[in-house]
Amino acid sequence: MIKISIIGYGNVAQHLIHAFMQNPTIQIEQVFVRKPEKVSYLHPSIKVTSDWSQLLPSDIFIIAVSDDAIAEVSSSLPLKNQFVVHTSGSVELEQISNHNRRGVFYPLQTFTKNKTVDFTTIPICIESEFSADLEILKNLAVAISEKTYIINSQQRKALHVAAVFVNNFVNHMYQIGSEICQENQIPFSILESLIAETASKITNLSPKEAQTGPAKRDDQRTIATHVAFLESNEMHQNIYKLLTQSIQKNEQEL
Amino acid sequence: MIKISIIGYGNVAQHLIHAFMQNPTIQIEQVFVRKPEKVSYLHPSIKVTSDWSQLLPSDIFIIAVSDDAIAEVSSSLPLKNQFVVHTSGSVELEQISNHNRRGVFYPLQTFTKNKTVDFTTIPICIESEFSADLEILKNLAVAISEKTYIINSQQRKALHVAAVFVNNFVNHMYQIGSEICQENQIPFSILESLIAETASKITNLSPKEAQTGPAKRDDQRTIATHVAFLESNEMHQNIYKLLTQSIQKNEQEL
Repeated sequence: MIKISIIGYGNVAQHLIHAFMQNPTIQIEQVFVRKPEKVSYLHPSIKVTSDWSQLLPSDIFIIAVSDDAIAEVSSSLPLKNQFVVHTSGSVELEQISNHNRRGVFYPLQTFTKNKTVDFTTIPICIESEFSADLEILKNLAVAISEKTYIINSQQRKALHVAAVFVNNFVNHMYQIGSEICQENQIPFSILESLIAETASKITNLSPKEAQTGPAKRDDQRTIATHVAFLESNEMHQNIYKLLTQSIQKNEQEL
Repeated sequence: MIKISIIGYGNVAQHLIHAFMQNPTIQIEQVFVRKPEKVSYLHPSIKVTSDWSQLLPSDIFIIAVSDDAIAEVSSSLPLKNQFVVHTSGSVELEQISNHNRRGVFYPLQTFTKNKTVDFTTIPICIESEFSADLEILKNLAVAISEKTYIINSQQRKALHVAAVFVNNFVNHMYQIGSEICQENQIPFSILESLIAETASKITNLSPKEAQTGPAKRDDQRTIATHVAFLESNEMHQNIYKLLTQSIQKNEQEL
């Protein structure tokens, strides 16, 4: 049985609590939250506190707060030599106060409010200051996910940048696609099948092999037509030009 | 029974032939291909010709060749007042020679060689010069797909630009993500779950609602860290900056 306490009650915290509660080898000792009224709908078996002095002993204290607050929250913890981890993709292990043994438990996924996700397929990236603690983190990760990766802080930073490209920026491409559809009285749902196929393709092909389209084919006529079509939206036009240029640069290099 | 002939034997032609052959209400009369030796592995029941004068009567002649060749191929056809359609997202109906009744049969999907796709979920965008012909196209589309849309040439052009964003550019984001992973000794497969979730999210949420990340949160510290991280690759850095700017512009406007 792994005893854990969770500090924070944002998006990631809520999804973690949900996943941990499904697993009999994990016991949620406590949830720390500044405004306890917010968590009134938590399962009654979970103890809630908003008082640092009331923290219960746990094997792992998981700080699941916004990136900017991690350093401060970890300094506020009235603990010594306990195992304290954060869940962020972009914060170094060193930002956790060194009063405690430090670690990272980073689930690499995009969490949306009120949308449950299947944790078993979510990669958990773990890192710890001391190797003995890595075993505890491994056990916790394996309990909820089929995919555990040992990733150091430098790699995690790279991974977070890569995740911005394949998640945030990809979603922004969807956004632009939906705006173009809307302006032309086309239902955005028409693109759903294409979006699904584009994403599923790369489980079998490398992105390099999967690349198609006018930029890849160097189809100058189509590119010129598209650039002219985007004339009324300078930002979309600039994005089209830059990404076309980048795809063509890749074709020349690779 | 709808009798069709297909002119061309590229990616789209091959996928269409595969889909049509599954359906008993469609009869492939003939495939026209300049080099018949290329199609030796076609089903023996399908007649192949490379001689314009040998074309057999059909309800629909489908020109499935590269965009640049559509006008020329349609002019070469020794036919009058027949129903001739192309399959392109970016070519106007008018580029088909006006010796014949013109139309468009555009399956909105990315076709990869040697990877079969489920046509039933692929939207078919149809357009025709004469309304009577639209009925023939509708019957053909409904025979292989659950989703048929009547889309005019102007809308189709918009749709093609939108498709470049949600398919070609999205795949390029995957490519950049995979390069960043490779440079940092991280397996790209770690991002698969995130990529799948990002794509599946927008079947329930609008891209606007689904947007997350440092740009959306206006998290200047993380953005600065990421821009610094990308210092060694100017193109990736420029893309990061431009897309971040575009997401932030959206947040202010919407």
